[in-house]
Amino acid sequence: MLTLSRKAHAIQASPIRKLVPFADAAKKRGVKVYHLNIGQPDIESPEEALAAVRNNKLKVVEYAKSGGVDSLREGLARYYQGIGIEVQAADINITNGGSEALQIALSVTCDPEDEVIVFEPFYTNYNSFAVQNDVKLVPITTHIGDGFALPPMREVEKRITSRTRGVVICNPGNPTGCLYTKESLLELGEIAKKYGLYVYADEVYREFCYTDAPHFSCMHIPGLEQNVILIDSVSKRYSLCGARIGFVVSRNREVMEAVMRYAQARLCSPAYGQIAAEGALSAPASYFKAVRDEYIHRRDVLIDGLQKIPGVVAPRPMGAFYAAVELPVDDTEVFARWLLEDFSYNGATVMVAPMAGFYATPGLGRNQIRLAYVLKEEDLRAALVCLAKALEVYPGRK
Amino acid sequence: MLTLSRKAHAIQASPIRKLVPFADAAKKRGVKVYHLNIGQPDIESPEEALAAVRNNKLKVVEYAKSGGVDSLREGLARYYQGIGIEVQAADINITNGGSEALQIALSVTCDPEDEVIVFEPFYTNYNSFAVQNDVKLVPITTHIGDGFALPPMREVEKRITSRTRGVVICNPGNPTGCLYTKESLLELGEIAKKYGLYVYADEVYREFCYTDAPHFSCMHIPGLEQNVILIDSVSKRYSLCGARIGFVVSRNREVMEAVMRYAQARLCSPAYGQIAAEGALSAPASYFKAVRDEYIHRRDVLIDGLQKIPGVVAPRPMGAFYAAVELPVDDTEVFARWLLEDFSYNGATVMVAPMAGFYATPGLGRNQIRLAYVLKEEDLRAALVCLAKALEVYPGRK
Repeated sequence: MLTLSRKAHAIQASPIRKLVPFADAAKKRGVKVYHLNIGQPDIESPEEALAAVRNNKLKVVEYAKSGGVDSLREGLARYYQGIGIEVQAADINITNGGSEALQIALSVTCDPEDEVIVFEPFYTNYNSFAVQNDVKLVPITTHIGDGFALPPMREVEKRITSRTRGVVICNPGNPTGCLYTKESLLELGEIAKKYGLYVYADEVYREFCYTDAPHFSCMHIPGLEQNVILIDSVSKRYSLCGARIGFVVSRNREVMEAVMRYAQARLCSPAYGQIAAEGALSAPASYFKAVRDEYIHRRDVLIDGLQKIPGVVAPRPMGAFYAAVELPVDDTEVFARWLLEDFSYNGATVMVAPMAGFYATPGLGRNQIRLAYVLKEEDLRAALVCLAKALEVYPGRK
Repeated sequence: MLTLSRKAHAIQASPIRKLVPFADAAKKRGVKVYHLNIGQPDIESPEEALAAVRNNKLKVVEYAKSGGVDSLREGLARYYQGIGIEVQAADINITNGGSEALQIALSVTCDPEDEVIVFEPFYTNYNSFAVQNDVKLVPITTHIGDGFALPPMREVEKRITSRTRGVVICNPGNPTGCLYTKESLLELGEIAKKYGLYVYADEVYREFCYTDAPHFSCMHIPGLEQNVILIDSVSKRYSLCGARIGFVVSRNREVMEAVMRYAQARLCSPAYGQIAAEGALSAPASYFKAVRDEYIHRRDVLIDGLQKIPGVVAPRPMGAFYAAVELPVDDTEVFARWLLEDFSYNGATVMVAPMAGFYATPGLGRNQIRLAYVLKEEDLRAALVCLAKALEVYPGRK
């Protein structure tokens, strides 16, 4: 019988993707759609990355080493050392984006039916990686009222069972934009040590922190060297989403040896992407400064604008390039679709990401949306006008 | 407890990789090592592919579509139509190499403990993909005496159980170089239809056929449209191993929809690799003619040379760029290591792939090696001299 696997049925298209046909239809009708729904920055990749690829001299595009190109791994080790994360090239394995990094990390550490704690709302693809590895995600809810901060650690301890293998920490957070405090991460570290848990630290937005303090990484937590598996990527940092270069980083030898065996099975990460990534490492500090300044400005434009719309709750995020926002509507999935199907203002509308899909607990987040401020100021302002007008006329407004 | 998963322990480094430290040590001693051990062609990638990447105008390396770049999928559909495989762009999903293609294909069709039939010797990474998906590979042995041809179909029927989900067919074969006959594939198709089995058709060596007849694909088998999942790649065809571009191709809608959900979870395949792959599609027929002629010449140089060495059995392969060869030694793993550690002739030695690791049945293939004829004639001839001398003086010679 030509049937599909249980996993194939369980893996879900993301709720954002379900809206794509409606966005396409709106565009066909001639409506301009402002895409605040996805984390695809419009920021240019560093010229150093682009030029490295344009100027490459490859005649045979050979397999790279399974763990990654040596010079890239060494360059990354220097990058980490520069931010106080003491790792060597051997502690780094290049992957097909941060996605594969987390996918492999879960597979080498979790057996089917094992549990991993995650703070909701969380990046929806964690669900897919969990399904693929038969891992059960155990959500702990965080709240818009306190900017989605980590909950008291007793909430974590309450969820720990004999099957708990680790905790996923996304910091700064997608979809919340929340930047966890050093204190709360140190507390989480104590729990991880006490119970022997892995910490899967998804820090792909590390460079996007809008406080004056430098980013505090889970890799900085003393005594947690064997527990932390860092998930990282050049996608957001260097606006190189399409290069598909991420990394697993850990000082746990046994984990890294297992990661290498997985890496060997799929041969290598993309050769051209690794050239781009290595080029990006030599981008000047001014590149990041300009990008950071731009995002801070955009964030402020967006949040200031949102806070002026009656009924909207929009805490100012301190990291990443997302804002989690509460709207005066019952169901943002219905609202998001209505925006694309039934609304336009001055020939334009907005595509937003309904947040129910970012929660594992049914019923949560139904009045929230995630906005990615990845558009230039002018477009952000136009999108804000659309959104305000839409909420004025939306029939389902509370 | 910071332990590894069952899968992390089960996944094995390939036996070839275990030899790498010995090859590195030999090189450090100043010994030249002829690499006949891996399928990394020295053939140049088509200039059309290289130039497409060098001349790319990307300013932001954005995510590609999860299913792949539209123009690449359309170009591939035309390529398939040109060889009598009637598929559309929607039947094609671009993956991170053929490796991910097979990995996803197994995951969407097999539950844990399901069985997949495979003809041994087979590509060792099938073992890793099986481990990762908790799938049991059920081997059927093929034999060097008849050039590793498909066995009588009663051998396949004998292995079918209620857990059998499909059959992996690698044609032309790695590591055997065997090209299956149309008749044997049609018979296998009948079995697949009768028992409702998927056919995972790994045809990444399709262009490397050395008979006058065109390659007969499993996609050509009438009435098997819903069963066949084609695993394909630009890696070997266009000498683009490092681009990491492969494809899942199937006319089974349900399978392709599930593949797309998996593809969405890891966002996309590499953008630069897809540019290279699309460029490669416009390589002229003369590129393939030259490559094919070169491989036929190399194969003949290698096989003619091997057949002159006393005690060596070397059937002439009709596809791919591998030769499976029997040596007059007890254990080719010991011999391969000895070649690197204890032998050199005129300052050179040969690295070969012992074949025991290509068999699932313990004890088989211990007197066989796989040679990849991916070196130019002059190097192949020098490697042959080394191998002949080595077999003369090898203490373990039978």
